[in-house]
Amino acid sequence: MNRLVMKFGGTSVADLERIRNVARHVKREVDAGNKVAVVVSAMAGQTDQLVAWAKEASAIHDAREYDAVVATGEQVTSGLLALVLQGMDISARSWLGWQIPIRTDAVHGAARIVDIEAEEIGGRMDDGQVAVIAGFQGLGPDNRVATLGRGGSDTSAVALAAALDARCHIYTDVDGVYTTDPRIVSKARKLERISYEEMLEMASLGAKVLQTRSVEAAMIHRVPLRVRSSFDDPETVDVSGNNIPGTLVCDEDEIVEQEVVSGIAYSRNEAKVTLARVRDKPGVSARIFGPLSESEINVDMIVQNVSGDGKYTDLTFTVSENDLERALKVIEEAKDEIEYEDLTGSTEVVKVSVIGIGMRSHAGVAAKMFRTLADRNINIQAITTSEIKISVLIDSAYTELALRSLHTAYGLDAET
Amino acid sequence: MNRLVMKFGGTSVADLERIRNVARHVKREVDAGNKVAVVVSAMAGQTDQLVAWAKEASAIHDAREYDAVVATGEQVTSGLLALVLQGMDISARSWLGWQIPIRTDAVHGAARIVDIEAEEIGGRMDDGQVAVIAGFQGLGPDNRVATLGRGGSDTSAVALAAALDARCHIYTDVDGVYTTDPRIVSKARKLERISYEEMLEMASLGAKVLQTRSVEAAMIHRVPLRVRSSFDDPETVDVSGNNIPGTLVCDEDEIVEQEVVSGIAYSRNEAKVTLARVRDKPGVSARIFGPLSESEINVDMIVQNVSGDGKYTDLTFTVSENDLERALKVIEEAKDEIEYEDLTGSTEVVKVSVIGIGMRSHAGVAAKMFRTLADRNINIQAITTSEIKISVLIDSAYTELALRSLHTAYGLDAET
Repeated sequence: MNRLVMKFGGTSVADLERIRNVARHVKREVDAGNKVAVVVSAMAGQTDQLVAWAKEASAIHDAREYDAVVATGEQVTSGLLALVLQGMDISARSWLGWQIPIRTDAVHGAARIVDIEAEEIGGRMDDGQVAVIAGFQGLGPDNRVATLGRGGSDTSAVALAAALDARCHIYTDVDGVYTTDPRIVSKARKLERISYEEMLEMASLGAKVLQTRSVEAAMIHRVPLRVRSSFDDPETVDVSGNNIPGTLVCDEDEIVEQEVVSGIAYSRNEAKVTLARVRDKPGVSARIFGPLSESEINVDMIVQNVSGDGKYTDLTFTVSENDLERALKVIEEAKDEIEYEDLTGSTEVVKVSVIGIGMRSHAGVAAKMFRTLADRNINIQAITTSEIKISVLIDSAYTELALRSLHTAYGLDAET
Repeated sequence: MNRLVMKFGGTSVADLERIRNVARHVKREVDAGNKVAVVVSAMAGQTDQLVAWAKEASAIHDAREYDAVVATGEQVTSGLLALVLQGMDISARSWLGWQIPIRTDAVHGAARIVDIEAEEIGGRMDDGQVAVIAGFQGLGPDNRVATLGRGGSDTSAVALAAALDARCHIYTDVDGVYTTDPRIVSKARKLERISYEEMLEMASLGAKVLQTRSVEAAMIHRVPLRVRSSFDDPETVDVSGNNIPGTLVCDEDEIVEQEVVSGIAYSRNEAKVTLARVRDKPGVSARIFGPLSESEINVDMIVQNVSGDGKYTDLTFTVSENDLERALKVIEEAKDEIEYEDLTGSTEVVKVSVIGIGMRSHAGVAAKMFRTLADRNINIQAITTSEIKISVLIDSAYTELALRSLHTAYGLDAET
């Protein structure tokens, strides 16, 4: 199986020179005998311009019209890349979502792909024609253009790879997935491989290398996903043997030497809400979290402290930073019903997470995290865990210290 | 029949403010009880940008990819106008060429419309929903986007009006069709009505109010076509009775008081080629015009003077200014075969034409033209005529003088 889907994001196709660079990456893979489809985003900045026009056009948001407008960005890039490839004597044609078609559900602006009729493009790829596909878009059940939401081109690429039974290479502006943010931790190490599950946690915690939904799709359809840099020199990148650059996102079975902890992620997009001296009576949680849920505000971590006399409790929870103001408003409006004395909100918090499939079989991972932070006098304000992740909420001033300390404690530092 | 197709060009939708102005024109017609479709061009400048990108992408010109790229301009405008209309509480949706579909032939980049399935949009218009249609584009037999060539949105509008059995209003940056260019002849008069045939001559002679193909289509399908300004204040334009602004392009039967001459047109896009002392032998015309035709150079006027001795002849013809260099090269390369002494080219010429359906039944129109020019000492270098048109080639320095003199001579001057 030598079908390959390559995906290039907006910064990789920002102008004609970069599109020519993309074409050289494609040529390398074609020359190596691969049957290639390329998924492209809009030129960087174009989508923002189109969104701004749509917003300026009307306060009334008809997502179907919004989609018709913003989907043009990818249409332009797909045509331009096909032209550039043809100019390099590579057989190529562009495909729009409605032409393949990539069928989606009816949720315009954030549609999900439900089906891809990949026979025709697959056949043409096998005959040597490069399929250049406009990402981020499909055809809704209303026969209109439907977009997949921001970052949707990653999802287009993975879904196409699944439908074409192909590998998928996501080209981005970093050269792979790191153990943690290299801008903060200089000893961060690039991972050769990472499991779908771990990547999913990393992505949802704000490591912006891949879009969460695309990792989910890759995991479900078991699409081998490689993250690599579009800024590598296309001609000198070594493609022989297994020495391919970047990070492979794959099934955990395919990772021979699995570390207990694979990475440390963090998210600054958190806000803390604290209700002091809440009357501790039956149903109080429902009275607090019911209205939040009705307002479509997701609550992440929750900590409840019972006071000495058992009549009052302090309650802390976190929401996305963007939801803080709305959350405070909802709680204020329900004050009479909830019965609390004081309400405070803060964005001076960060969620730090230790991620690793190995946790399932290794004890002591959490204990090491708490001890490491305690040694640095970093106070833990809340904790959540999943099977392969432990997250703590701490004062955001300690972000760098916490990341570096944990990175060292779990033996992730690069050898110097 | 109160279906109406309104068409707005690139300068009329150049930014959101102008698009809002367009929406007010649409609202006026909706409020007056019309069932409205709106055909829009790309925002002024957008198509140029897209064409520039496509040219930069590759010297190899795949018109199918070019079409995929440039058709996005109209797609953006159609979505934006639909959003603006919705914001004004007017039911509206955008339609792309492939959605209706507007079926075209396979000549990408300059496709002709072959069929429009107008039942669905017609039904929705009758139910009160404004159809906002991306102009300039259709669906080719290869299931790909096909564009109609520059100015194609006029043709989209007329073809839709024919399919919808609707009237057609073309909004442009001038307020109608004039007897001649008002920038040159201050006494030029706006025509209330002009016949299709006359408009066709005007358009093909460079009066850029309407695209020639759209006039042709309107004539064939007998679509009543009104040319009017998008810069009129949408709210104060008088729509009562017959007092609609602009010029109606219609069947000659509908013009009660037909003038003998309706207008004076001119074209500066002409070049003159003269071959001096050509050997006058059988087949000489074929030897000259054969190679030109093979190079796809259209020859317009031809004048041949036989010299005194009958052995040599001078031959003058005109081509489009853009073709002059190529034409000279073709003639030079065939010099041995043609046998001539001297070859000259000049762009210092202008073609001035007197146009009028009334010529068919009135003698003396040509004589008046020649006498008027002679009175001004303007030398006629070549002449062509058709049933409703007399064209002369003159030195371009006399353009203004010729236009003003003829305008007065045929009684076209506005009353002061």
